Amino acid sequence: MAVNHRFQLAARPAGMVKRSDFTYSDDATVDDPEEGEITVKVLYISLDPAMRGWMNEAKSYVPPVGIGEVMRAFGIGRVIASKDSKFEVGDLATGGFGVQEYATSGTKGVTKIDPQGAPLPVYLSLLGMTGMTAYFGLLDVGLAKEGDTVVVSGAAGATGMAVGQIAKIKGCRVVGIAGGKEKCDYIVDELGFDAAIDYKGEDVKAALRTHAPKGIDVYFDNVGGDILEAALSNLARRARVVVCGAISQYNNTEPVKGPANYLSLLVNRARMEGFLVFDYAERYDEAVREIAGWIAAGKIKSREDIVDGLEAFPDALVKLFKGENTGKLILKVAES
Amino acid sequence: MAVNHRFQLAARPAGMVKRSDFTYSDDATVDDPEEGEITVKVLYISLDPAMRGWMNEAKSYVPPVGIGEVMRAFGIGRVIASKDSKFEVGDLATGGFGVQEYATSGTKGVTKIDPQGAPLPVYLSLLGMTGMTAYFGLLDVGLAKEGDTVVVSGAAGATGMAVGQIAKIKGCRVVGIAGGKEKCDYIVDELGFDAAIDYKGEDVKAALRTHAPKGIDVYFDNVGGDILEAALSNLARRARVVVCGAISQYNNTEPVKGPANYLSLLVNRARMEGFLVFDYAERYDEAVREIAGWIAAGKIKSREDIVDGLEAFPDALVKLFKGENTGKLILKVAES
Repeated sequence: MAVNHRFQLAARPAGMVKRSDFTYSDDATVDDPEEGEITVKVLYISLDPAMRGWMNEAKSYVPPVGIGEVMRAFGIGRVIASKDSKFEVGDLATGGFGVQEYATSGTKGVTKIDPQGAPLPVYLSLLGMTGMTAYFGLLDVGLAKEGDTVVVSGAAGATGMAVGQIAKIKGCRVVGIAGGKEKCDYIVDELGFDAAIDYKGEDVKAALRTHAPKGIDVYFDNVGGDILEAALSNLARRARVVVCGAISQYNNTEPVKGPANYLSLLVNRARMEGFLVFDYAERYDEAVREIAGWIAAGKIKSREDIVDGLEAFPDALVKLFKGENTGKLILKVAES
Repeated sequence: MAVNHRFQLAARPAGMVKRSDFTYSDDATVDDPEEGEITVKVLYISLDPAMRGWMNEAKSYVPPVGIGEVMRAFGIGRVIASKDSKFEVGDLATGGFGVQEYATSGTKGVTKIDPQGAPLPVYLSLLGMTGMTAYFGLLDVGLAKEGDTVVVSGAAGATGMAVGQIAKIKGCRVVGIAGGKEKCDYIVDELGFDAAIDYKGEDVKAALRTHAPKGIDVYFDNVGGDILEAALSNLARRARVVVCGAISQYNNTEPVKGPANYLSLLVNRARMEGFLVFDYAERYDEAVREIAGWIAAGKIKSREDIVDGLEAFPDALVKLFKGENTGKLILKVAES
């Protein structure tokens, strides 16, 4: 029987995640599927900011990962055994397969993908949860429309890149906030953002006044903290602030910093709204069709930052939370 | 010529407002109206939390009151001279007449009222800006509907009382947060709230879990600070947080305290939205008609807390910010 290497949660992290928060075990074997289940060989694993929340004790929109459980993760796998008539051996699929080499599970939430349609990693980025998050957050929660000024933080991250490019397609003026000159150049030169603000080198508040002189109509927030405050200080009337995440706050040991200037919502008759992409599951098809069309037409680019090998998982997670990735951070576990 | 006693802004307050932030002057006389203007004798002046913001230097949704200018205020006046054909001497009207005995001004924003329709002070409370604020904030921003659990802070204040009673009329479960047993008893026993939480004597977070066990659908916030945080910690899915004011923060010398747990908006797919009643001016008639009907049917009670004499203005303002009023705080300047 094949060994199933995997990462189990060993401890609830205090502050930044670290390798010792996980146990890397090599003593598990691959389970056979029972009726209605499949077994997949995991090829790619998606690294997502939300993972940090899943590691905390507190119940959120999903239960926390239990100590000793395999770390939760979305990924792409190849079916190697199936007791569900909808899946055949050889099929490729996305699902919540966890941080391990093989996953045996029911097929709820598992979706077949077409390897001819796009390179596999794109199914974890633009055509996966990342793209869905950008699409529904920007358009359904943020109500972005032609002529709006859209500002997105974490703009060189996977979701931010998608948000900015979709906003451009929809006729918005787009300003991205990212860390460092390289990322800022990339989103302007390669992705067509109208402007970029380097939060590591610029006064974000002042730069927003320069680049969004009529105020921000939609602020898509991936980071929270001081950048959220800077955005709130420059809202246009009836602005929509989309709360997608707050990566600057997830690894804090101090309490989360709330936006001291939230009364800007009052003065500007503005709205701050949170959302979870899973609530849009029934409409994923619609978004995938539209995004796939944009990819085919060369209107939107996917960029993945691929790290090799299951064992690199904890380091890759730290890379994510330090903002060292550009584009979608993905762990490549196996070739095929 | 009659003397026009008045309060002018003397200084930008630091922290709690105080008498020395105003100049009480008795050397002005009453101006005659020019073409298109009227002169009113001021009978009642509305005391509103928003006044504190108008005294600050920072531009908000309206310019600040300038140093040396008559303090801005809404009030009720009797027309004593008119050069506008829409107003006759003897008419009663509401408008932004300022903290003074007589006001001469254009008639934009001045509205005639019918003294037979309701006692005059009610035109500054349920049938005035206070009622409008409660009505549009609860129903248009908060989208309160039958079966919702509505929580309102500042519940024994003018707006809070109106919000709670309108929510009851609309079939909601209503929990009010107020300071002290007397206010709490009043809103439950006299106004029909389902429950009250005494923030001075109870753990608000725990009490909200008790009184809103399925979570809060609409939180109407008049106070900000710790109570806003407590409410955010107990939201129902797709909750609406209506940001009407933050009276707990207006007189702070430290920066405003932002809600550290604003990510509750994300987890609960909830929304926090600010509004200004003036944006609904075109629909005031609709609200006045409906509220007047409720008053006539005995479904809603107006309560005013009336302080006598123009000179009491600064003390009355302090009373407002200390939360010592129950119901609408109004300054009575003259009998008729």
